[in-house]
Amino acid sequence: MAIAESIDQDILSGATHAIAADLDKYDYDKLSADTVTCAKQAILDWFAVTLAGASEPLTDILCSELAGKGTNRLIGRSEKASLIDSALINGAASHALDYDDVNHYTGGHPTVAIFPAVLSLAEANRASGKDVLNAFVAGYEVAARVGQLVLPSHYTIGFHATGTVGAFGAAAAAAKLMGLDADKTAMALGIAGAQAAGLKSMFGTMTKPLHAGKAAANGLFAARLAAQGFTANDEVLETEQGFVATQSHESPKELRPIEPGQYVRSNLYKYHAACYLTHSGIEVTKQLVAQYGITPDSVDKIEIHVPEGHLKVCNIPAPETGLETKFSLRHTQAFALHGVDTALLDTYSDHNAQDAGLRATREKVKVIGDLQPSTMARVSITTNSGDTFTDETDVGIPAEDLTDQQAKLDEKFVSLATAAIGGDKAQKLMDQIHGLDKAPSINSILDLATG
Amino acid sequence: MAIAESIDQDILSGATHAIAADLDKYDYDKLSADTVTCAKQAILDWFAVTLAGASEPLTDILCSELAGKGTNRLIGRSEKASLIDSALINGAASHALDYDDVNHYTGGHPTVAIFPAVLSLAEANRASGKDVLNAFVAGYEVAARVGQLVLPSHYTIGFHATGTVGAFGAAAAAAKLMGLDADKTAMALGIAGAQAAGLKSMFGTMTKPLHAGKAAANGLFAARLAAQGFTANDEVLETEQGFVATQSHESPKELRPIEPGQYVRSNLYKYHAACYLTHSGIEVTKQLVAQYGITPDSVDKIEIHVPEGHLKVCNIPAPETGLETKFSLRHTQAFALHGVDTALLDTYSDHNAQDAGLRATREKVKVIGDLQPSTMARVSITTNSGDTFTDETDVGIPAEDLTDQQAKLDEKFVSLATAAIGGDKAQKLMDQIHGLDKAPSINSILDLATG
Repeated sequence: MAIAESIDQDILSGATHAIAADLDKYDYDKLSADTVTCAKQAILDWFAVTLAGASEPLTDILCSELAGKGTNRLIGRSEKASLIDSALINGAASHALDYDDVNHYTGGHPTVAIFPAVLSLAEANRASGKDVLNAFVAGYEVAARVGQLVLPSHYTIGFHATGTVGAFGAAAAAAKLMGLDADKTAMALGIAGAQAAGLKSMFGTMTKPLHAGKAAANGLFAARLAAQGFTANDEVLETEQGFVATQSHESPKELRPIEPGQYVRSNLYKYHAACYLTHSGIEVTKQLVAQYGITPDSVDKIEIHVPEGHLKVCNIPAPETGLETKFSLRHTQAFALHGVDTALLDTYSDHNAQDAGLRATREKVKVIGDLQPSTMARVSITTNSGDTFTDETDVGIPAEDLTDQQAKLDEKFVSLATAAIGGDKAQKLMDQIHGLDKAPSINSILDLATG
Repeated sequence: MAIAESIDQDILSGATHAIAADLDKYDYDKLSADTVTCAKQAILDWFAVTLAGASEPLTDILCSELAGKGTNRLIGRSEKASLIDSALINGAASHALDYDDVNHYTGGHPTVAIFPAVLSLAEANRASGKDVLNAFVAGYEVAARVGQLVLPSHYTIGFHATGTVGAFGAAAAAAKLMGLDADKTAMALGIAGAQAAGLKSMFGTMTKPLHAGKAAANGLFAARLAAQGFTANDEVLETEQGFVATQSHESPKELRPIEPGQYVRSNLYKYHAACYLTHSGIEVTKQLVAQYGITPDSVDKIEIHVPEGHLKVCNIPAPETGLETKFSLRHTQAFALHGVDTALLDTYSDHNAQDAGLRATREKVKVIGDLQPSTMARVSITTNSGDTFTDETDVGIPAEDLTDQQAKLDEKFVSLATAAIGGDKAQKLMDQIHGLDKAPSINSILDLATG
């Protein structure tokens, strides 16, 4: 035991301070153009899902409890809240629909835990767009580095990494935006780590999105306290009985060196408001339809191949309700074939579950669980004239074509933001976010996204 | 694995809801007189340590960050804060000096995590003294029940039970004071459990007291959200990958039935502002001095027997500073023999470390580490005339004589409160707290303890 413990300590020794000191490597002017694009895309998507989540019941409850004090604005709402509470409310709202981005290195949803801390602080401090982007990337990549120290066991044990690992990212992003030195940043990571919480057993309840909001708020709170000299164990990751020791069962791992931009590049997006495991299939079919001009009437049969595990998650063969259509590979295939907007929340309605045309098409879909575990799908569409078109994709692989990704994110943004604030404001807001790197502050973005 | 898991679930099955439903058993009119006395004593002691901690740097920082918004008053301060933030600040202040009470069933410090939630809510809702006492006892005993499900491994792993287990107690106390039904109380426990955090590796930093404040605030927040219909997993204790499964390694345990008052009766107090492991020795010597009229000049030698483990914690033989005297069995024995007020924070000064008379006496003290592990001490004082007086005590055993305990707590209260708010207000405040069971609200207590 004594030997094992000393090995643990040796390998991780200095990790917290190294992460804190590495924030110096994040300089907006040295970020690559792709990194800036990726950061802006994550932020655009965050505004889309937050505007959509802002009117959810859980957001109403949080506002009822916390809003009314303070001067920070809330996305998609007319109330204001304190600095810390605004990060909490915006963070929870942004994860309310579980429609936000994912990064496997962080073990969950990165932007919902990190960006709200940056946003609240940027509003209070009138930070520039460049500083916002730089701080966001820095915090995002701290979450990716911390995540790798505790994953996969941290998640397997039952911790919700979005809430736990996310708090470190939020603290680091806030520390960066505040310009804290490495010592104070290490303290901020300590204060954040001591508050980090979140249980996977809360999935399916309002407390799952609350984890994201608390991560943002706790991380921001940690950085603010550290700035004033509040103390913590500044070796929270590597210390005996610290975060890694208490909340993972990983074999000792070394902290991997960082190249700014390397993790934000692997952000993954959800383009469909259905179960994530239906997404690859939807994408392939939409692609085949566009490429070959396939119409629903012309289809004889559709075969969709997925990993066997998907069959337990999203294979309701004949949904009766809107909620059930989200977990139906067959019905979502019908949506894709009929050109229905799968990004739109309202698509997954009882009315569409009962639609005769969609039901006729879903009867033509055969689901086969024969792929290796992944998020991949392969679709073969056979037409009445006997042609068969086949393609496959895996939405779990980060996009290589950022222009294509931008187009898809813009489409999703317009769909969600228009429903929330109308088409005119949605377009203006998208333009503003596209130009965030040139914005003197985030004020004009907030003018459009709040109130 | 599958079999073990199903056994786990069987034994703990329904625990969260049972705890929630058992809050119905707490009815002020049915609490025993001793239970009410114990609750009032815990609250009296809480005000003493909070008044003393209110001017600590960590409290200043928390106020600077959070105060100024809201209408809840803060103990020993002139600022106000929001409902939730006032619980956080008061909770952290009350644990700032680590001079507050302890209960082994909760695995830490119960009152600092629970009472601030009750106090903030009681101020907002103008609750009666009886309702405050009843809610406090109910929440306290929930913490004791939850603690037993995860201890000792929860603490051994590295979690700070004051912060984690305390959050359940705070949520239950707030739920009781708000009159939530069992279903909503179980939700509140779920929301609290999902936020519960705290690491032992933060000991020695400001983040340790922060854990207590966050437990109070998170528990109160959880109850407020649950009241509005916020959802969580309402089986947070027993569910697969719930609180017990993720944060302890205990063999499956049954939830023990509850008799209201049984745990608050075992509250332990600190009467000396030094390391806890010096306390038994101080108590014995003070007792011998009082009983036999021993004076420092009349002493030839003192032998103090303690468990061997104490020697690594509090056996600085010749302290040079005030801080070092707190960790010196010899110097604290000298304090006791000289009749110095060991309850007073200022006693542990550099001046007293250098005092010639105290130094001469401590030279007569021999420390012997030969007792079984406990918090016990045995002291033998031999006088110049050859008489030897011996006695022993263990401050880790709850007092049987509540009247004697009251006298000691009153003395501690006067000592700490006088330093904070002056003798006149201290006496009035003590009288008010003694009469809490007859108070229509806690308003007059807050009038004296704040501002």
